[in-house]
Amino acid sequence: MAIELALIGIGTGNPDHLTRAAETAMRAANLILLPRKGAAKSDLIDLRRAICADVLTDTTRVVEFDLPSREAQPDYLDAVDRWHDAIAAIWAREIATHLPDGGRLALLVWGDPSLYDSTIRIARRLDARIRLSFIPGITSLQALTAAHGVPLNALAAPVLVTTGRRLRDGGWPSGVDTLAVMLDGHCAFADLPPLGVHIWWGAYLGMPHQAIDAGPLADVAARIVATRAALRAEHGWIMDTYLLRRGEDAR
Amino acid sequence: MAIELALIGIGTGNPDHLTRAAETAMRAANLILLPRKGAAKSDLIDLRRAICADVLTDTTRVVEFDLPSREAQPDYLDAVDRWHDAIAAIWAREIATHLPDGGRLALLVWGDPSLYDSTIRIARRLDARIRLSFIPGITSLQALTAAHGVPLNALAAPVLVTTGRRLRDGGWPSGVDTLAVMLDGHCAFADLPPLGVHIWWGAYLGMPHQAIDAGPLADVAARIVATRAALRAEHGWIMDTYLLRRGEDAR
Repeated sequence: MAIELALIGIGTGNPDHLTRAAETAMRAANLILLPRKGAAKSDLIDLRRAICADVLTDTTRVVEFDLPSREAQPDYLDAVDRWHDAIAAIWAREIATHLPDGGRLALLVWGDPSLYDSTIRIARRLDARIRLSFIPGITSLQALTAAHGVPLNALAAPVLVTTGRRLRDGGWPSGVDTLAVMLDGHCAFADLPPLGVHIWWGAYLGMPHQAIDAGPLADVAARIVATRAALRAEHGWIMDTYLLRRGEDAR
Repeated sequence: MAIELALIGIGTGNPDHLTRAAETAMRAANLILLPRKGAAKSDLIDLRRAICADVLTDTTRVVEFDLPSREAQPDYLDAVDRWHDAIAAIWAREIATHLPDGGRLALLVWGDPSLYDSTIRIARRLDARIRLSFIPGITSLQALTAAHGVPLNALAAPVLVTTGRRLRDGGWPSGVDTLAVMLDGHCAFADLPPLGVHIWWGAYLGMPHQAIDAGPLADVAARIVATRAALRAEHGWIMDTYLLRRGEDAR
């Protein structure tokens, strides 16, 4: 009845971002669970299906399940907490159904399991006897800096990795001149005082319809807002991330 | 006479961290330059040689060159600036010698080219006609969080990626409860007020002699300092990185 669960970072959806370790762990699994997140984000499950078809041999079963939606609640963290409980319960049900005699389960995580992803937190809610392992993957931040050919940090300087919500609510944090912003559904960059700030932006990073833009924030913010809206309308969903730098190294 | 230069993130030295894109770009190169950094860090060039032997076919030449040492100067940034100029001059000389009729050059970067690495900055000093491309790689931070099975960020919270020097000189920065610390030669964590802080530490991450430790900073700081000194004495060099978290999510 022993269960092993591998959380595998698969990178950005570009199969070329898969590591050898990710491929090996996928092939070693008896079962891979793929979450369905509704029609609007069907591109995401299509990419996972394509990666499975590309990597797997016949010895791994792929089972899809419907991810519950998060309740709209005033307390964001509380809503997320309940949502994670619900997902853990579904995983446990799928494990009992499809691996009744034990075996190796794998879950495919966009980017890296450690960065703005809840798979680790959900996995920690499972039966403590399940042995967990973790395979790092290329993140959208790394795909962003590679697409622009720009260092994440200025020389020997710090970088704050933060969310769009925090940037919108709190403005530019003190003590740091480079921000890497994720999970921003509302273009928080457009509300910053733009003088002396450079932005490197990207959407669908690593995917076939990757879009990037960059320049002084004063010159390009409005253009990025318009591009983002058009792309979101075209594809039905969007995931984007960006780097902001001010000071001497903003060029 | 056209030259293309690919900066390839090779991850942490664990060949399993190589991505498909990195392998493809390595094999597509006519020439790979490997820097020799002196006897103390010979493990590092040995790992690069092993990766080349594993990945390459006969069509790629591998040439080693000696990396100059950085001058000990009072102004750190100025010294780094001159050092980068010197390295760019050596690359230009090697290109002229080994690719006189043009071709594809690749450089292998530990981790990811965008994170606390100067390869992008040095490459920007070369002849502007050289076409640059960038392949992301798994960083030691990702190997650290995977080894510990811990999220980089607390839920929806920011992370400051910073250096040991800054932490030592400035203490815990305001406004952020998670720090990812790199380039720390002097155990800056040991000088922090430890109450309520958790540390996840790792050295030689992804390599065969990987070492990790974790716990409340008050309990484990002295042990990590001792382990680090012993490992450094044993191997002649050390690279380590760590995550610090305070507040509710430090467990």
